[in-house]
Amino acid sequence: MFKVNEDYLKLPGSYLFSTIGKKVNAFAKENPDKKIIRLGIGDVTQPLAPVIIDALHKAVAEMGVAETFHGYAPDLGYEFLRNAIAENDYKLRGCDISPDEIFVSDGAKCDSGNIQEIFAKDNKIAVCDPVYPVYVDTNVMAGRAGEYDPKTETWSNVIYMPCTAENDFAPELPKEVPDIIYLCFPNNPTGSTITKPQLQEWVDYANKHGSVIIYDAAYEAYISEDNVPHSIYECEGARTCAIELHSFSKNAGFTGVRLGYTVVPKDLKAGDVMLHSLWARRHGTKYNGAPYIQQRAGEAVYSPEGKKQLAEQVAYYMKNAAYIKEGLKSAGYTVSGGVNAPYIWLKAPNGMTSWEFFDYLLEKANVVGTPGSGFGPSGETYFRLTAFGTYENTVEAIERIKKL
Amino acid sequence: MFKVNEDYLKLPGSYLFSTIGKKVNAFAKENPDKKIIRLGIGDVTQPLAPVIIDALHKAVAEMGVAETFHGYAPDLGYEFLRNAIAENDYKLRGCDISPDEIFVSDGAKCDSGNIQEIFAKDNKIAVCDPVYPVYVDTNVMAGRAGEYDPKTETWSNVIYMPCTAENDFAPELPKEVPDIIYLCFPNNPTGSTITKPQLQEWVDYANKHGSVIIYDAAYEAYISEDNVPHSIYECEGARTCAIELHSFSKNAGFTGVRLGYTVVPKDLKAGDVMLHSLWARRHGTKYNGAPYIQQRAGEAVYSPEGKKQLAEQVAYYMKNAAYIKEGLKSAGYTVSGGVNAPYIWLKAPNGMTSWEFFDYLLEKANVVGTPGSGFGPSGETYFRLTAFGTYENTVEAIERIKKL
Repeated sequence: MFKVNEDYLKLPGSYLFSTIGKKVNAFAKENPDKKIIRLGIGDVTQPLAPVIIDALHKAVAEMGVAETFHGYAPDLGYEFLRNAIAENDYKLRGCDISPDEIFVSDGAKCDSGNIQEIFAKDNKIAVCDPVYPVYVDTNVMAGRAGEYDPKTETWSNVIYMPCTAENDFAPELPKEVPDIIYLCFPNNPTGSTITKPQLQEWVDYANKHGSVIIYDAAYEAYISEDNVPHSIYECEGARTCAIELHSFSKNAGFTGVRLGYTVVPKDLKAGDVMLHSLWARRHGTKYNGAPYIQQRAGEAVYSPEGKKQLAEQVAYYMKNAAYIKEGLKSAGYTVSGGVNAPYIWLKAPNGMTSWEFFDYLLEKANVVGTPGSGFGPSGETYFRLTAFGTYENTVEAIERIKKL
Repeated sequence: MFKVNEDYLKLPGSYLFSTIGKKVNAFAKENPDKKIIRLGIGDVTQPLAPVIIDALHKAVAEMGVAETFHGYAPDLGYEFLRNAIAENDYKLRGCDISPDEIFVSDGAKCDSGNIQEIFAKDNKIAVCDPVYPVYVDTNVMAGRAGEYDPKTETWSNVIYMPCTAENDFAPELPKEVPDIIYLCFPNNPTGSTITKPQLQEWVDYANKHGSVIIYDAAYEAYISEDNVPHSIYECEGARTCAIELHSFSKNAGFTGVRLGYTVVPKDLKAGDVMLHSLWARRHGTKYNGAPYIQQRAGEAVYSPEGKKQLAEQVAYYMKNAAYIKEGLKSAGYTVSGGVNAPYIWLKAPNGMTSWEFFDYLLEKANVVGTPGSGFGPSGETYFRLTAFGTYENTVEAIERIKKL
């Protein structure tokens, strides 16, 4: 008789955003007259930039002609895209990453979920608290997280690094040494970030203790301040301790297009074993390459015109972020984030829990946000709003909240 | 100090098609004047059908306009596509599968590699021998296959079901009961298939013993005979024992487009646990939906014009299959497959091993095929040719082989 993966059954409830979706759908059904504004899930609302649309149409046309048709893509991605990434995201920033250390995929969520697979089951992970749920959940599903304690809402075998107002939402180096450290800056959900010297401390720590850092740089396009690193490879020694995840979802609006990439430097080894070889093996065996059409769209992101149009798109969302932040501040909320990230992190008012505030906001203002506690116990009483709405909706949502 | 997944290190060599790719590239480099014809990897060569191209352009255009832009897709796929699949691939065939039992993905290779994850590590798998390498390799990576014996080229904890000329390339019900049974019909690599009464025996066996069947139906569009089932759900009782994998790669030429789906009926349970819930959880946590553009292309596959154009595409490849089969037969080869599948399975001549024949064919005829031994020990001395080349190349390849 077949048996199921018992580790899956340990997961409490469903994926955070599925839960929110169900709650919102139920509310919408009961209140068909109410105009709900969604500033919850980090999904973009602006259409793809013209330069991306042109690249997509061109690639589609190629697929309709025998001479330019493309079948299976190379496992790790087309060279034209890997070269563009290496040049623009690394070489121009002074980072030493070669095209064959770049693995193109269908998105950073998949990669951030799958990457744990190349590590031993008895490795211990450390995560920021609050944190993007995928890091922890995928380790639970792999049997690496231990047991869940519903009282503390933590897993017995996970090292939590609290990020709260007290430490300016920046994690401290853990006393117990983890094998794998997940870091995400600019941070989802808090919108905070750290400076290059601060990140260098993490790289030094990882190299000293033999930890590996999984660095999620999904939001680097939103960095507006000079001293904030765009890549962990700006730090000395990162090639021997860090994997970096990238998304095209937020810088280019590809949430529904699906494209991302992961960097695994060849210097990153456990004994003689290159993690690069293991990730290549995973790609070759369990993945079949990102679509040609999408990879051409990714290439267009790095064209001069693409950079210009996407900078405008990022500026559009950051205008929303500023509006949310200032509006909530003026209404007396305690707010952070929103300067180098499209997320605004606020304290629920009047001693409300995160979910109480979620319900309150949904019912009274018909605005959807994300409860901070959904990202981890230290997120309790906090709440996340995203800047990815339209400007008009963002303004209306904030005006509604101000009137509460 | 972090440690790697030791199960990855057990895998001997690289993924079969990567090895072939390297050999062919080396040969091409040394012989730049030779025109190599590739009938190895099962990659299509015909451009996408006009109806698919139209659907892609239309969806791309929608992504460029705010009112019709699509961000994150629903985890399990858009309803328009799931409805089209349920109606055409199931209801019209008398199979009882509802749209919410269909999980849209970026391809059957990913799904066939990931599906093992929802099962316990100590489940024992059974595979046909020869077999599509992904089934075994992904179980090795999960630590489920035991140890590799280089002498027999088998894994200690895998049940092999030999498929050779002696049993007409149809597996026999295993004496030792497996927890998970991988079946693929029409078969890759042998091109053989089984009748509906034969498949019913497998369903009855699985239900009787509490096994689950993972049924790979990637090649069902190539079925030309009446008594061959297109879906395992044509068999009575399959809803309680079978998962079915589907690809758009071969019926619609989507190898570079990337789209597939997996069916997990809600009646398929281990105790109280629905495998449907576990697979939904995996999709929700580790996957972010197939691209909107691709899902619209998938929908077009089921339009009246789409069906017509794709039937012509399948007929084109099956004309190749017939040409290969007849040509090799006339040259004295022992050949099977090619009637309900785009693969031709032949016996290497003169007592050659599969890899000897691979090298021989590459060097003497500049034709690339796939060594049967790469699919498992019972594939030794066999060889696979695919019908996915152009007609002109296929004819030329066979003429070259006939002259050897």
